[in-house]
This record gives sequence, structure tokens and C-alpha cells, in this order.
Amino acid sequence: MTTTSSPAGARSLLAVVLAAGKGTRMRSDLPKVLHPIAGRSMLAHVLAAVAKAGAGRLAVVVEPGRDDVAEVVAEFPGAETFPQAERLGTAHAVLAARAALASGADDVVVAFGDTPLVTAETYARLRAPLAEGAAVAVLAFEARDPTGYGRVLVEDGRVTAIREEKDASAAERRVTLSNAGLMALSGPLALGLLERIGNANAAGEYYLPDAVALAVADGHRVAVVPVDEAEAQGINDRVQLSVAEATVQARLRRNAMLSGATLVAPETVFFSHDTALGRDVVVEPHVVFGPGVVVGDGCTIHAFSHLEKATLAKGVQIGPYARLRPGTVLEQGARIGNFVEVKNAAIRAGAKVNHLSYVGDAEIGAGANLGAGTITCNYDGVNKHRTVVGAGAFVGSNSALVAPVTVGDGAFVGSGSVITDDVPPGTLAIGRGRQVVKAGWAKPTKR
Amino acid sequence: MTTTSSPAGARSLLAVVLAAGKGTRMRSDLPKVLHPIAGRSMLAHVLAAVAKAGAGRLAVVVEPGRDDVAEVVAEFPGAETFPQAERLGTAHAVLAARAALASGADDVVVAFGDTPLVTAETYARLRAPLAEGAAVAVLAFEARDPTGYGRVLVEDGRVTAIREEKDASAAERRVTLSNAGLMALSGPLALGLLERIGNANAAGEYYLPDAVALAVADGHRVAVVPVDEAEAQGINDRVQLSVAEATVQARLRRNAMLSGATLVAPETVFFSHDTALGRDVVVEPHVVFGPGVVVGDGCTIHAFSHLEKATLAKGVQIGPYARLRPGTVLEQGARIGNFVEVKNAAIRAGAKVNHLSYVGDAEIGAGANLGAGTITCNYDGVNKHRTVVGAGAFVGSNSALVAPVTVGDGAFVGSGSVITDDVPPGTLAIGRGRQVVKAGWAKPTKR
Amino acid sequence: MTTTSSPAGARSLLAVVLAAGKGTRMRSDLPKVLHPIAGRSMLAHVLAAVAKAGAGRLAVVVEPGRDDVAEVVAEFPGAETFPQAERLGTAHAVLAARAALASGADDVVVAFGDTPLVTAETYARLRAPLAEGAAVAVLAFEARDPTGYGRVLVEDGRVTAIREEKDASAAERRVTLSNAGLMALSGPLALGLLERIGNANAAGEYYLPDAVALAVADGHRVAVVPVDEAEAQGINDRVQLSVAEATVQARLRRNAMLSGATLVAPETVFFSHDTALGRDVVVEPHVVFGPGVVVGDGCTIHAFSHLEKATLAKGVQIGPYARLRPGTVLEQGARIGNFVEVKNAAIRAGAKVNHLSYVGDAEIGAGANLGAGTITCNYDGVNKHRTVVGAGAFVGSNSALVAPVTVGDGAFVGSGSVITDDVPPGTLAIGRGRQVVKAGWAKPTKR
Repeated sequence: MTTTSSPAGARSLLAVVLAAGKGTRMRSDLPKVLHPIAGRSMLAHVLAAVAKAGAGRLAVVVEPGRDDVAEVVAEFPGAETFPQAERLGTAHAVLAARAALASGADDVVVAFGDTPLVTAETYARLRAPLAEGAAVAVLAFEARDPTGYGRVLVEDGRVTAIREEKDASAAERRVTLSNAGLMALSGPLALGLLERIGNANAAGEYYLPDAVALAVADGHRVAVVPVDEAEAQGINDRVQLSVAEATVQARLRRNAMLSGATLVAPETVFFSHDTALGRDVVVEPHVVFGPGVVVGDGCTIHAFSHLEKATLAKGVQIGPYARLRPGTVLEQGARIGNFVEVKNAAIRAGAKVNHLSYVGDAEIGAGANLGAGTITCNYDGVNKHRTVVGAGAFVGSNSALVAPVTVGDGAFVGSGSVITDDVPPGTLAIGRGRQVVKAGWAKPTKR
Repeated sequence: MTTTSSPAGARSLLAVVLAAGKGTRMRSDLPKVLHPIAGRSMLAHVLAAVAKAGAGRLAVVVEPGRDDVAEVVAEFPGAETFPQAERLGTAHAVLAARAALASGADDVVVAFGDTPLVTAETYARLRAPLAEGAAVAVLAFEARDPTGYGRVLVEDGRVTAIREEKDASAAERRVTLSNAGLMALSGPLALGLLERIGNANAAGEYYLPDAVALAVADGHRVAVVPVDEAEAQGINDRVQLSVAEATVQARLRRNAMLSGATLVAPETVFFSHDTALGRDVVVEPHVVFGPGVVVGDGCTIHAFSHLEKATLAKGVQIGPYARLRPGTVLEQGARIGNFVEVKNAAIRAGAKVNHLSYVGDAEIGAGANLGAGTITCNYDGVNKHRTVVGAGAFVGSNSALVAPVTVGDGAFVGSGSVITDDVPPGTLAIGRGRQVVKAGWAKPTKR
Repeated sequence: MTTTSSPAGARSLLAVVLAAGKGTRMRSDLPKVLHPIAGRSMLAHVLAAVAKAGAGRLAVVVEPGRDDVAEVVAEFPGAETFPQAERLGTAHAVLAARAALASGADDVVVAFGDTPLVTAETYARLRAPLAEGAAVAVLAFEARDPTGYGRVLVEDGRVTAIREEKDASAAERRVTLSNAGLMALSGPLALGLLERIGNANAAGEYYLPDAVALAVADGHRVAVVPVDEAEAQGINDRVQLSVAEATVQARLRRNAMLSGATLVAPETVFFSHDTALGRDVVVEPHVVFGPGVVVGDGCTIHAFSHLEKATLAKGVQIGPYARLRPGTVLEQGARIGNFVEVKNAAIRAGAKVNHLSYVGDAEIGAGANLGAGTITCNYDGVNKHRTVVGAGAFVGSNSALVAPVTVGDGAFVGSGSVITDDVPPGTLAIGRGRQVVKAGWAKPTKR
């Protein structure tokens, strides 16, 4: 038995992540572990957490042939998929990663792809007893209502067994300490324990928790690591998915506020897992952040704004009703107003697009001003083209800039123009019909 | 006394619905029972529930001369209004429907137009004891704080009386089982019991609950049927109205999620009573469904969208900031983007209207693409006209289609055009001013 | 000792408001007391409440050199700033206003700029004991968890001392009655008590609560005035700020509903401190009110609307997605539709702006109709100009009105026009390119 007291950081960690579940109660064509929370899949949450807890190898047990799951796994360094052909219980599922278990990690953690709220810190706490000589550590919570959970039986401070509800005595059913399912095992012992688990039970399944009784019978110490019931919650249907989303959002909002952002109505603001807000950012009610948003100090995000893969420098204001799509870069002091969509465009320092505009595949120069209703016509039905507006240029309201086209520095475009040719710097361009007035016209009549 | 054990379904049911209340605390010109919850009036909720519970006749007691109330009643088969001229208590109100009561239903249920959360299932449970010989059944709940409620007094499992707060002894006031007001009465006995109720009490009113003591005195059995306090809640002011709305929304959201729709933030999504969502529909935060919306499998409703009387086929994406108005039909794979309004229009398979557009009284062909800022000019100030865009057509950005007008299959409209005449299939149409550039123009100067 | 029984209203009141705190945990460049709740700064909430409670003089103790704080103070009649150079405790801070204290008010109330939820009614209750002979009154709440609070020690109904946590005995720590910090002092006694407070404690600070023991030692009566824990909450970080915002919003929503407005989903509607709603106003989900909004009877505010400094007469409908900016006046029966921005403009009775429009610096006549995509081009890059549309005029869709410009009464503007010259009443104006069709054009090809 390893009794080293070296820090966990010096020990190698293998995470076996079970991600092959069908998830029937989700009523979905999407595998359960790919359902997203805060903008990334449950599985990615789990993989990121175990990696952050020190796992250098991630063995992900998957349903054979699911390329979509494999794609998520491939994003994580050190991660590998192991197909699980038959479903004969959790211990059997872990053994699908037998090759990884045999490769000699100091510590092994078994995690679940549908238990996405467990933090890296909790995974670190879970493996910690191994460094102090425990053979196994189980994660457990005090259940408000333990019905249906496996009970964690403890004597003299050591775990003696985990008893499934259906195998439990009346006295054991009164125990409220419940098995979260997650487990850490000593690397040198893991494979031996797992291979000895049998299936002599009502369901004929190989249960991972039976590793506890085997370790105890061998004279090993089994530790219990506490966790909040909410954090340990697994996701089986979309109501539970929405509760998990709410938990993650509450964490993200709290962090944002304590770091110096004002959320006027935090319960109406939705973050992605990676949203980064600077100091003295103000987020008004009803704002949605997709993945990949970075907001600089002193920005104001007005109500009803929607951002995705966008970078805002210091002192930017957007909204209300601003929609920033991927590839949006707003430089210092830029201003995006209401009913404005920006995509794959750089808005330079101090430039303004305040009303009812579409700016796509474009670069808007410093201090330029696009009037209400300006539209970059970037698509000709086949190809996308680029619009460039120079520094200090002014584009009058309701103008169409037909790309590819350049409006030079300091140029001026008359309201209601359709600009199809480049406008030289400092010139005035107009492209609109001449107004005529008819006094003797016939008003439409009611049909 | 009827002691038949035949199923409730074989027994006829009359529902008497009291809907004449003034609702002073609503501070409204609208009758209380017409205030809506989840897109339909409280009264309609009640009438739908009793009808679903088997009521073939609905006798609705109303304030005389309220055409708006009568209109709601008229939407329900078998429903009839009975004017209540004087307000002398609930028993007196029920007797306004004397003609209906005399017509010989097996069971009678008395419901309240301002108690809209009681489900059809609860009405069915309420009438059930009548089929087993009870003369009367009362709906009752365990009140957290019973102050103000009539107490349901029970001895040996049978109700002995309902005691109004002001007539209760100290011991009776400690009873927490409280009268919800709703009652089922044996049809053959109902009229006789109701007509014997007197008004010898402090307020001089004829109280419906007094039917209980009369039935008991006659040696009949009176049953008690339990209900949740929240479900039994009546609406007296707009704070209570908002609580009822929240209860109904919570039910609708839960049903949607368990049926296979993802609601990222259920608390920010508002349904109508009749919203129908398919499997693997994703609804992002901040979405509002008006009545009459049907959403097919695999659709995504992005944030900040608003839908009303719209039908979405499979795999449609809308929003963010999509507004679908009545008469919108989106065929498979259609795409409606941000700041787009669609009204009375069919968007055929795979067609796209992605940005800042108004499409009204129109048909957009399969695979067609309307550029940013496209507007169908459907109204000439007097009449509405129709726009037809053919399959595979491309309308350049910021174009106006002046209806009645047809853009043919595969036609192309240049950006910034005003299209007033039909565009033949496969042709290019342009209608815009020619661009001119002036180098020696005078910039505006600050006044 | 003053023992007058005259009404509080006849006694003069000085409020000393401590507003110099650094607020480090806010992590902000903005002084803590300037962070807003419901559209105005915490400090303004406090100043408004003490003024409403009768304070004719407001002595605001501020960090020296903060012009932004001084500006808020200057908005309140009778308010004056007193710089606090050193930070030596709350009693020392109050003495920064020594000149005001020496000026002879009957009553003194000490308030805190970061305790913004205390109502005028509570301030009035706090000062009331002074009129009945108390020398000091302290505001206190029953704490769920009193750890960290000063305990209010009471004997025979009189306060004997306030004990800071760190100076408290074990028995005193079990007391749950906790000091909210706010205090009322007899005017004639205040300065004498404050100047005798010493700093012989662990932190070497001058504690305001020590005034209690001094008053007691002099034989004066010290009263305790109860308050809810939530109301007494001070703001130290942005999580607490968001909780305070939620408390204020809950008050505003409840008041609006009980006054006769329907809030379909009150938790998604955000008011300003001064929002005024008429009777039978309906506010749909997801609406944000900035300061200065007045809404007349029978208006409907559809979902996703945003209003600021706007006045709506009776029977106006706006939204969904209406954005009303400062200076918007909507007369009876006017209609603002989706994706419409209005700024500094009067929309006369029955006029309609229903879709995708920008109306700025304008007057739209009674019964006029602006088509979808109408844009007033009010800015030439340097100056703002005015647009006038006459009564009953009709502006076709996607038109640009280049200000300064007037469209006369009953005039008609063709769709897609750019209007640069005045349109006489009753005439038809068109300003757009002529449509051409090219049959033999080359479609763009994929690059």
C-alpha cells in the first residue's frame, strides 16, 4: 500500500469519465453528455474539471460510433475515448478503459459525464486521501431524502460498504449519507479491485461501489469525502438540466459581481463558462453572453443585448438591443446602439453605429459615424465581400454600402445613398433618386 | 339517494360557474374573471377545466349586460349565461342558474371564475364521491394560516359543517382544514338543499357552504376532497394574479422540459396555455410565446424572440430578436434572424430572412434569401397588398418590394432597389439612383 | 431635557448623512454611495428618505474633492457637504458636520449613505422617541445571525449600551438584537455627547454607538426602534448591491400591481424609483423603465420594451421591442411598434410608427402613419435638424426624411423615397431610382 505523503501534485492522475449513458429521460437525439450548460457540453465541464484537478490522462468511456462525443473529447489534451459495447453496470463501464488503468497512474478518479457541477476543487479533495494511504475514497452527501441512493456505511470513521437501496436493511435505509457515485482509487490497486467485482445481485450488474467492500475486506482504508448535495447532482432529464444551468449561472454571476462588475438584475443575465468581464463593467437586465466574450474595464452593456465571440476594449457602450456576432472587435470608446448587428467587423476607437444597422465583414475607422439604417451589403448571393469605412467618415442614414467598397477617410455619404463605387477620402458621395412632387395624384381607394 | 357505482363518465355533469364578482381590488375596468393568465382569461381556464372534467352543461352566472364575459362563455359548447341581478351571497348566486339545476344532471359542480388554477383532474376528484353515494363533496386544503377561511369540521371521517371564521368558536378556529369554496352536489338533491339555505347570519347573506349542514341534518354523507393550497387560491388583486400566472407558467415549463424541450432559463420563458413544442426544441433565455404557436422538432428559438399564432416546421431557427406575428408559417429549415418581423407570410423550406427586415402579406419561395433591411411595402395607406418572391430568388440588402409585386424564381434584385414592377424569373432588377461624387463640397458647420 | 409632546412635524430635524466611505469591496472607481439602485444613487435614496421624514437640513459628510458626490448633494434643498479629512470612526465622521450640529436643530438623525433601503417612515419612527423625551434612539433588528454586529443591550425596556462584537462578553454575544447603525439624538444634547466619545478601544476609533452609554450615564433615556433586518442592510459589495436592487424592485412592483397595473411577470420588469403607471396599464414580460417615465391609463407596454424620460398618454401601445428615449411624448392612442427608436419627438394622437424605424427630433402629426423602415435623418455629422410630418400624412416604407424637412398634412411619400425638400400638404412625393431589368446578366460565381 502506498503511504507516501508527497503532495498530490507530484502524483500522476488518471481520470476515467463515464460518458456512454443513453439518457432516455432527456427525450433527445443528442447524447445526454452533450447537452450544454453555460455554453458548453456537460462532458466538457467534467473533462475541464478533472484536468484542472491534475488529471494528465483522461479516459472517456463512450458509446461506440458517436463522433460528436469523440469531437468533444478530442479538444482536451491527454484525452482518449474507450468504446463501451455492452452495458453491464458502472464497474464494467470503468473496465472499458482497462488499457488506461493498466498504464500505471498513481491515482485514479472515476467521474461521470452527467454530473457536471462537481468542481476541480472537489475532485482534488476526492483524490487527496489516496496520498495519505487510502485505497479508495468515495464522494458522499447528506441527502435531504436518501430514497433511491446508495447509502455510505461508516464505522469508526472508515467506510465499510456502500449499500444499494434495494439491498439495504431497514436500519441501513435510515442512513442519510449517500453515495454520489464518484470515486478515487489507488492506481496500483484499481484494476485488481475492479476485476474482482461480481454481478451476483438482483439486476445482474457489475456495481462500481462494490469496490469499497472488496478494499475493506483486503484490510485497506476507504475514506469518505463530503460534498454538497446540489454539487453532486446528476442530470437525467431536462428539468434537472435547467436546475444545473441555474446553479452554474449563480456561480458565474457571483464571481462577476465580487470581481467588480455590476449586474443590476443578476437573475436575468446569462453567462457562458468563459465570459470575462473587467472592473466597473455594468450589465443591465436581460443580457445574454454566448461563448468567447471579453469585456474591458468600464464598459456598459445595456439591456437586451446579445454577445458571442466578441471583444470589447475599455469604455465601450453597447445596446440596448445590440447583437454582437462572432468576430466583432470594438475598440476603446466605440458605441453600438439599438437594433444593430455586428459580425466579423472591427469598429475602431470612438466610432459609432447607433441605430438599426447591419455591419458585417467590415472595418469602421476611428471616429467614423454610421447613420441610422446603414447596411453593409456584404453578400451577393454567392460570395461575401468586405466594406471599409475610413477614419472620421460619415455615412448618412439609410445608406447601403455595396461591398467590396471603401469609403475614404473623412468622406461623407449622403442619406439614402446606395454606394457601389469607392468614395475617395474627403469627398461627398450621393447615390439616390431625385425627388419629384405630384400635386394631382389619385389617392388609393379602399377596395 | 343515488348509490350507483357506475363510472363518473356515465353520469351527466352540470357545472355552475360563478363569474359575476366585481373584483374591486383589481382596480380595473375589465371584469375580474376576464383578466388573463397564460394568454387566456381566468374564466376560460375554469370553463376549459370543468368541461375536461366531463361537464356537458356549463351554467355561468354573470353580471347582467357584460357582453365581454358573454363572448368568452359563447366559445364553450354547452355553456349558457345566467344573469345575477342582486348580490346576496354565493348560494343565492348559484340559484341564479336555477333553470339549469332543475334540468336533471346526475352531478353538479360549483366552480368559481376567479379560482383559475384548479385542474380538470381536481374537478373529477371532487365529483367522484357523488358516484359513491355522497350528497355533497367539498374541496378543502390545509392552510398554513387559516385566518379568514371557513373551517371544514370533520367527525369520524365525515364532514359535519363548514364554519365561517366570524361564526367559529375558539376551538373551531384552531382547525386548519379550510374550505376552498368549490363544491360538488348530487344533482337530484342540489336544488332542494340550495333553496333551504337561509341568511340568518351577521352579513345577511345566503352562504353556499351552509348546504353542508343541511345535507348532514338530512342524514346524507358529505365528503371532503383534499387539494393543495396553491391550487385552490382565488384571485382578488393583481399581486395574486401574478402569483397565479407564475404557477401556471411553472406547470407549462415543466411539461415542456419533460417532453423533450430544453429551456435554458425556464424562469425567463413565457408560454401561452396552448403552446406546443416538439422534441429537441431549444428555447434560449427571454422568449415570449403568445397564443397559437406550434413549434416542430429540432427548432431553435434564440433569445429575445416573440411569437404569436405562428407555425414552425422541423429544424427552423429564429432569432435572436425575431418577431413572428399571426399568420406566420415557417417551413422546414427556414431561418428568421435578428430584428425581423414576419406577419401573415409563408417562408418556404430553407428560405432566409436574416436581418432587420419586415415581411408582411408575403410568400417567400424555397431557398430564397432576403438581404438585410428588406422591406415588403404591403400597405398603401388604404389597402394591404401581397408580395411574392420566387424559389431561389435573391433580394439584395436594403431593398423595398412595393406590393403587389412578384419577384420571379431565381431572380436577383440589386441592393438598395425599390422594386415596383414584377421581376421576371431569372432576371436582374435594379432600381436605385446613380452614385455621384463631389470633391469640392462644403462640409456642414457647427451652428 | 426636552419633554415637549408637540408633533414631530413642528420640530426641526437635521440629518447627518455619512457618505465618505471608500467601499473597497465594491472594486470600483465610483464612490460606493454613487452606485445606483432603481435608477438613482444610493446616496440620493438616503437623502430623499430623510428629507421626506422632515429633515430641513441635510449635512452630508463626504470624501474631500469628490465633485461627483457633491453634485448629487446639490440636487437636494437644504443639503450641504462637509469634508471628512481623516477616518477615525463613525463618531468622528459625524463631527465633521460640527457646524451643522451647533446650529440648533431640535432633532438630529444620523444616516448612512450606504444603507439605502431605510424608508422615510422608518426615519420618522426613529426620531419619534425624541419628542417624548428620549435623548437618543437607536435603530435595531433581530438578526438571524448576529455575528459581527454590535449588540443592543436592553434592561427594563431601556437601552443600556451597544456592545461591539469584539468587546462583548459571551452572554452579550448571545443577544440577537443588533445595531443597525442609524441613530437619532436630541439636538440640544447631540454635540455634547459626540464630543465626549473617546477612542480607548482595540481599533483606536471613535464609535458613534458609544453615545448610548454616555447618555445612559447622564441619566437620559435611550430608546430602541425596531426595523426589519433586510431594510437595515448596508451595502459593501456588488452582491449586496444586487440584493438591495431586488428589494427595491419588489417594493415598486408590488405598489404598481396594487394600484391597478398588470405585470404579467413582475420579476422580469425593472422600474426606476420614479416610474408612474396609470390604471389598467398592462406590462408584459421583460420590460425596462429608466428614470422619468409616466404611463397613462389603459396603456399596453409589450414585451422587450425599454423606456426612459418618456410620457405616454392614455391608451398608447408600444412594442414589443420599442425603445423610447428621452424627450418622447406619445399622445392618446399613438402606436409604436417593433424595432422602433423614438427620441426627442412628439407622436400625436393616433399616429403610428409600427416597424423598424428611427424617429428623432421630430413631430409626427395626428393620425399620420410612418411605414416600415422610415428613418428621420436628423444629423448631418455636425448639427441636429428637425423633421415635421403633418396630420394624416402617409410615409411609404423604407423612406428617409432628410431634416430639416416638412411633410405637409395629408401628404403621401412613395415607398423607398429619400425626401430632401419639403412636401406640400396633400401632394405625392417620390424620390427614388427608376427600376430597370436586365435579362442577360452574369450571376456572381463562387470564388
